[in-house]
Amino acid sequence: MNFEAIKKDSVVLSSIGESERNEALGRIARAIEVRRGEIIQVNERDLKENQNIPSALKSRLKLSNSKIDEMISGINDLIKLEDPLNKTLFSRELDKGLELYCVSVPIGVIGVIFEARPDALVQIVALCIKSGNCVILKGGSEAKHSNTFLATIIKDAVGELLPKNAITLLESRDNVKEMLCHDESIDLIIPRGGNSLVQYIKSNTKIPVLGHADGVCHAYIDEEVNAEQAREIIVDAKTQYPSACNAIETILVHRRSLDVLDEIVAELKEMGVKLHGCEELAERYAVDVVQDWHHEYGDLEVSLRVVESIDDAIAHINRHGSGHSEVLLTERPESPKVFTSLVDSSSVMVNCSTRFADGFRYGFGAEVGISTNKIHARGPVGLEGLVIYKYIVLGKGQVVSHYSGKGASCFTHGVLDREFKV
Amino acid sequence: MNFEAIKKDSVVLSSIGESERNEALGRIARAIEVRRGEIIQVNERDLKENQNIPSALKSRLKLSNSKIDEMISGINDLIKLEDPLNKTLFSRELDKGLELYCVSVPIGVIGVIFEARPDALVQIVALCIKSGNCVILKGGSEAKHSNTFLATIIKDAVGELLPKNAITLLESRDNVKEMLCHDESIDLIIPRGGNSLVQYIKSNTKIPVLGHADGVCHAYIDEEVNAEQAREIIVDAKTQYPSACNAIETILVHRRSLDVLDEIVAELKEMGVKLHGCEELAERYAVDVVQDWHHEYGDLEVSLRVVESIDDAIAHINRHGSGHSEVLLTERPESPKVFTSLVDSSSVMVNCSTRFADGFRYGFGAEVGISTNKIHARGPVGLEGLVIYKYIVLGKGQVVSHYSGKGASCFTHGVLDREFKV
Repeated sequence: MNFEAIKKDSVVLSSIGESERNEALGRIARAIEVRRGEIIQVNERDLKENQNIPSALKSRLKLSNSKIDEMISGINDLIKLEDPLNKTLFSRELDKGLELYCVSVPIGVIGVIFEARPDALVQIVALCIKSGNCVILKGGSEAKHSNTFLATIIKDAVGELLPKNAITLLESRDNVKEMLCHDESIDLIIPRGGNSLVQYIKSNTKIPVLGHADGVCHAYIDEEVNAEQAREIIVDAKTQYPSACNAIETILVHRRSLDVLDEIVAELKEMGVKLHGCEELAERYAVDVVQDWHHEYGDLEVSLRVVESIDDAIAHINRHGSGHSEVLLTERPESPKVFTSLVDSSSVMVNCSTRFADGFRYGFGAEVGISTNKIHARGPVGLEGLVIYKYIVLGKGQVVSHYSGKGASCFTHGVLDREFKV
Repeated sequence: MNFEAIKKDSVVLSSIGESERNEALGRIARAIEVRRGEIIQVNERDLKENQNIPSALKSRLKLSNSKIDEMISGINDLIKLEDPLNKTLFSRELDKGLELYCVSVPIGVIGVIFEARPDALVQIVALCIKSGNCVILKGGSEAKHSNTFLATIIKDAVGELLPKNAITLLESRDNVKEMLCHDESIDLIIPRGGNSLVQYIKSNTKIPVLGHADGVCHAYIDEEVNAEQAREIIVDAKTQYPSACNAIETILVHRRSLDVLDEIVAELKEMGVKLHGCEELAERYAVDVVQDWHHEYGDLEVSLRVVESIDDAIAHINRHGSGHSEVLLTERPESPKVFTSLVDSSSVMVNCSTRFADGFRYGFGAEVGISTNKIHARGPVGLEGLVIYKYIVLGKGQVVSHYSGKGASCFTHGVLDREFKV
């Protein structure tokens, strides 16, 4: 792979205007519509070659007509979103005739490694085009025919509108290994997959990594709580889509609310949720003892633990959680302040489901993924996670030596409030 | 080292109010004033034990009375800066009674590895306290007595105002090695040092790294240029402080402006600047041929290259530069747009010195360092580089299952425009 050529093209892509980028997106949406039948046929080849994968994986791999509808409407929504590039984030007069501008620009080259979901390929490419980034993609091998075909359709549709290396599909794992070495050409890696993939990547590259390794989310039932509300929220957060990263894996309960938990446990059991408990609750509900509090079941399974105080609950979350999403269930007036301030997670909720932690539900319009990073972008990440800024200084011959020593000029650092334009 | 205990304390520190953090800073400033004499004495021990280090290093190591004045006034300036924490960056109504807030919070635990400049220790600690981050410090071994003494003064001054592990001084390189393994407890590493230190750290940790490896900055003399202005800017950018990372290392010149370069070269030679050239210019000025275009002299030395167009100049900068700071010298109306849009560096200047690329000169009040990263923070980084945000969702029992399927509720995604408060 010629990663240096991709880096070069990223500079060209960064200067392509909003209308061209939106035109490219429009062409892709139309091409997918026109070639819908072929896409489904090619996808059937992948499904046929992977008959023995688990059914959850199979449903991710399968491209139905409704999934293709969603792809197309997703791209059309993205076209309507405001351009994230070339925004003057602020401007300042450093001195008379010396002007500082901070302007949003693409990150450059983004490598995305994703699971066997061919619709994810389309979504990622669309986000990268909208934000002016070159993208290098590696999808799950189960989807190889679908991915190759979709990438071809996209490249044909885009034609000469974008630089040749705007979109690159990697064929093999060896390509991924190679990519991880090219920190001089690649600016960001976004792995969308399980813990072991994310840890492997972080251990094998100098390139910054954005994403989340796992989602060990918690619900804490406080000492005063609306029992009916707590039940409804916990059932939603555990069972509405158990394999989602924002589904809860652990329920913590204040000792005074054990009777509330009893009712919830009865309902969860009825819904087929497998329970695990701390020693006390394992005995109370006649279930297994929890082996590892930092564990993402991703299924109809949940851990239970009794705590003596909200501080104990917070300490448990900060120690065993993954910094993803947690919810406090409470009617106690002083608890929300403590919980929202001391829980160190990307999304902290009070009295609503952790499943709301999602770019679309937060109103971001498009989602790159959910990040548990503590820098750059945290929580659900929209287009703004794919841009950075550069500083531009326009002068009229000014030099620093005039601003130091005796009789030095002073900086004015005044408000300029002007869009960057040359 | 107990990094887990530091992580725990970082959560406590994150909830400490602005007035306590500023009070801690005030106490540190007063303690440094009171113990000024002792500090200078201890520093003399370091100087005595390192008599054979280069004079540039020695002047960085030495703590004069005026440097101590600067330390103190730096802290007092920081106290006056606006609190970077607990700002509601935006708020949104997801639905009636379901409110999303994005609130600025500290990053958590920051590891800083810095050169043998004891005043840097004070500056870094002050920035981390202001931004509510726990800091782990490792300074150059030449400054070990000064660093240990300053850390003790700071900790004594802060007393019980901040958590016990707010400030940790590492004693040995083995501690650094150990720190790099603790990605579960440390959120960001800021190395302030040369290329080899930065590369070593990036290769040996999963923790995100903020900073710059080197500053290979360029000046490009365009085909139409104000010769006098170009001369003054290049002399400033090369000689005013040659070891600064924003000093230029390479001068690119359009063939039509070679006569302008002739005058500049004459002046640089007079000032004792050693020149290196591309084959053509090496011959023209009877100097050595450049061996490596990606080289930071950090001294009175500069590379020269003739190019045929502004595009060639931009290609050279993007290929051989470090993404730090570059300047275009021009009178040609169409050049600034091309240069500022296509040069992929954190600071891009037109007709002014690259030496302006600096947090204080940009008016940020305090500087963590200069970053050539493409994510989180780029260019001169102020306090905002030490904070991130969390999402807080306040509900009244809402669950996601009500927002999907038949008869689903719709998100309103309305403007809330309210500060977060519980």
